[in-house]
Amino acid sequence: MKNALPVTRAENFADWYQAVVGEADLAEESGVRGCMIIRPWGYGIWQRMQELLDRRFRETGHENCYFPLFIPLSFIAKEAEHVEGFAKEMAVVTHHRLKMIDGVLQPDPDAKLEEPLIVRPTSETVIGAAFQRWIRSHRDLPLLLNQWANVVRWEMRPRLFLRTAEFLWQEGHTAHATAEEAREETLRMLEIYRSFAEDALAMPVVAGEKPPHERFPGAESTYSIEAMMQDGKALQAGTAHYLGTNFARAQSIRYQTEQGDLAYAQTTSWGVSTRLVGGVVMTHGDDDGLRLPPIIAPRQIILVPILRDRPEDSSVLEYCDSLAAELGASSALGEPIRVLADRKPGRSVEKRWGWIKRGVPIICEIGARDVAAGSVTLIRRDRARQGEKIDFTSLARGEFVQRAPALLAEVQSALQAEARERLRAGIRSDLTTLAAVEAYFNESDDSESFRGWAQVPWARPEGAALDSVERQLKALKLTVRVAPLEQAPLPGERCLFTGAPAREWILIGRAY
Amino acid sequence: MKNALPVTRAENFADWYQAVVGEADLAEESGVRGCMIIRPWGYGIWQRMQELLDRRFRETGHENCYFPLFIPLSFIAKEAEHVEGFAKEMAVVTHHRLKMIDGVLQPDPDAKLEEPLIVRPTSETVIGAAFQRWIRSHRDLPLLLNQWANVVRWEMRPRLFLRTAEFLWQEGHTAHATAEEAREETLRMLEIYRSFAEDALAMPVVAGEKPPHERFPGAESTYSIEAMMQDGKALQAGTAHYLGTNFARAQSIRYQTEQGDLAYAQTTSWGVSTRLVGGVVMTHGDDDGLRLPPIIAPRQIILVPILRDRPEDSSVLEYCDSLAAELGASSALGEPIRVLADRKPGRSVEKRWGWIKRGVPIICEIGARDVAAGSVTLIRRDRARQGEKIDFTSLARGEFVQRAPALLAEVQSALQAEARERLRAGIRSDLTTLAAVEAYFNESDDSESFRGWAQVPWARPEGAALDSVERQLKALKLTVRVAPLEQAPLPGERCLFTGAPAREWILIGRAY
Repeated sequence: MKNALPVTRAENFADWYQAVVGEADLAEESGVRGCMIIRPWGYGIWQRMQELLDRRFRETGHENCYFPLFIPLSFIAKEAEHVEGFAKEMAVVTHHRLKMIDGVLQPDPDAKLEEPLIVRPTSETVIGAAFQRWIRSHRDLPLLLNQWANVVRWEMRPRLFLRTAEFLWQEGHTAHATAEEAREETLRMLEIYRSFAEDALAMPVVAGEKPPHERFPGAESTYSIEAMMQDGKALQAGTAHYLGTNFARAQSIRYQTEQGDLAYAQTTSWGVSTRLVGGVVMTHGDDDGLRLPPIIAPRQIILVPILRDRPEDSSVLEYCDSLAAELGASSALGEPIRVLADRKPGRSVEKRWGWIKRGVPIICEIGARDVAAGSVTLIRRDRARQGEKIDFTSLARGEFVQRAPALLAEVQSALQAEARERLRAGIRSDLTTLAAVEAYFNESDDSESFRGWAQVPWARPEGAALDSVERQLKALKLTVRVAPLEQAPLPGERCLFTGAPAREWILIGRAY
Repeated sequence: MKNALPVTRAENFADWYQAVVGEADLAEESGVRGCMIIRPWGYGIWQRMQELLDRRFRETGHENCYFPLFIPLSFIAKEAEHVEGFAKEMAVVTHHRLKMIDGVLQPDPDAKLEEPLIVRPTSETVIGAAFQRWIRSHRDLPLLLNQWANVVRWEMRPRLFLRTAEFLWQEGHTAHATAEEAREETLRMLEIYRSFAEDALAMPVVAGEKPPHERFPGAESTYSIEAMMQDGKALQAGTAHYLGTNFARAQSIRYQTEQGDLAYAQTTSWGVSTRLVGGVVMTHGDDDGLRLPPIIAPRQIILVPILRDRPEDSSVLEYCDSLAAELGASSALGEPIRVLADRKPGRSVEKRWGWIKRGVPIICEIGARDVAAGSVTLIRRDRARQGEKIDFTSLARGEFVQRAPALLAEVQSALQAEARERLRAGIRSDLTTLAAVEAYFNESDDSESFRGWAQVPWARPEGAALDSVERQLKALKLTVRVAPLEQAPLPGERCLFTGAPAREWILIGRAY
């Protein structure tokens, strides 16, 4: 069987990923180390994600704002004092002018900054400084902010969307009067991420808490949603941190309580990034390219006219245009249908494969015969292939228009069901000894023998015991993903690592 | 008469501007030189602008994408070779890691970049390099891209929104097969800016072409929209450039024509920025703060409950909530009404003034008496004051709900009409000699004696003649704004500067 991509998932998952990202016009290398160009189709997916998340953030009372790209070194230095294991791979701005010296354009030595500026890797420090100015009284709380921004973290081994030096994200930052409210906020945003991933991206995830050694530096608790990619690896797809008063103490974020005392605010932060686009690729892609859940597809239906350089071409184009107008006037999944009649020059068979690779949920081909018969020939991208052949369906035009919303909803559900089943089947909970875990993950040295995750009992070891667990896992290239919020019963289990009575189940696996 | 702001427009326009930006919660200094924090209300206005412009860009076939924040020095150096008068005030990244050395966090000498990176001041170079890869055939044209991004240009005298080191903008970049198409595109985008400014921002502008010495470096023609601020100064509010094949030649952007030849693409670029927020402030603000055109107001109607810590408070809150729900379900100016019941703690009179300063088009105060009478007491922000007093109107609730869309449309029109009249009255076309121009603009040394623009005949001088005109204007702190696209008749006029037969009218004035 020949596929639209030069490499299959089974042959080499990493190369396959790269091929989908390229062939679906999602993104490409820019020539600037670690920085990608997000192409219109990839950006369209990200913009859909933004729209849907932004609506949820607003509905829960958050307001958008914008903080500076640059952070003074002194802000970062202050944080470094407080945070052990503070990451230092950042882009540093040291000059503010270029100058032609001896015919070579270079940083002007006379324009060296007194204090270097850091390109924000995240904005806790600069937003904390504003919180300190803005928060005076309990009446100023809760303060619920979000920002859509680009951030930079130097990466030695960049991969498009998954790990890039510059990426796009949203970062929520909130301040509250009580620990209870701040914890509620953290879990509320985690739940927004979970339901967004599951409903909009059709990417089921496990929401849970990270063990202490995987926490965001300075956080009291770190939660994440973890998605299982088709190679069985985990993708951390969103995080939410309850920061307690740790950041408030470091930055003097205090407020006057109703009783007139001064108290430290309780803060949270949470974010998702363009990494989600990579998650969608590795969740739904097949060997012909991307498959997009209709809710986030920039275009849900494409109409490809089959033109023959003959007089009937104009009636084919008219038919496409009027069909597009009719579809665009109706709604699917709660929004107007996003449809495009692809009138660009080019052969229709090439266009068909282009849209298959881009993952458009429904691709229609309209020829003179369809016009004569008043019909529509369509491909459902989620089940485009029956072996070698494309699976075409023909419907009367009126029936297609009427059924289009249901068809799109079916594609959304089908992709979700498939991914759900993969997640369910990919979690082993019968590995009761470390030896069994080791045997399972090392069964084959072939990195393409996909392994999912193991759910194992855990006693929440701390200190030296935790360090030892970390070492054991590292040797197997495994990490603790999360302790799921939804816990299975745990009758009398013992911790897989320490033998102490277990306190919860955790998921371990390989990860991106 | 006492105003809500500590300073009036007449007293000191610059201080007044600063006061509005601060008191309306639009933006503030961040502590990072030249970089601002855009607060939620200011960001909300920008987000409305984005939504409306983005829709217009898409409707005209443009697609959004995202290019890297960093540009290699070599790209910039290449441009510098081609472009005379190339600006060099840019943020330069030279290191990619921080290191603690002798207890001081600093750029790690071992992590110096081989090639410095420039934080993008605009993206022509990096987008041109992509165009060079993407464009092969006439079938790839036109290529119509846009990006929403932050850019950085070092500024020695920053002013919030008007001139900041970092600002947010959109930059459109397109490539076409013919000069005619590229010129059409340039004027199409200029017209989108013009109508957007006039219709959405209620900020009438003059659209026209810049003289040669005011062109974007490397452009064949530069067009802009110019708005008149309340102090008579011009604000360049958007630009569109026809670049001919100048950038295509420098970057080898070539395509195969239908005939099989290789030809250079014709390119354009165009942009507007967060500067528009400053333009809205200086167009519509009054001595009580901002006045927002309803189309771009993040909230169009605010309901302020008047609470007295009495049992009837709950019925006041219920009344506000149900009124908000009712209003939110109806539409004004083509979109659902954006309404908020302001339930935050605080005194209602303080809230009223807060929303007046923020410029909300309609502010309602709801007390127990309104609940009992089934009425709504409202302030129309565009005419909030009658001398010392607030101008309240009372309407039956049902009538208010029914009339709200018309009221919002009236506010939009009223602000637009006021600004239109100011622009009309602010252009003198009776200054027929340079001496008259000089006398007019220098009549008083008082910078607050507001002067508008002069429309004068112009022979399109070039070379040394143009240099001389530039010097004359500079001495008067004047610049040529544009030659308006819509030209008045020009029967036998002579150029104000050279005495040669005039070819068109131009506008001259002071500018931001």
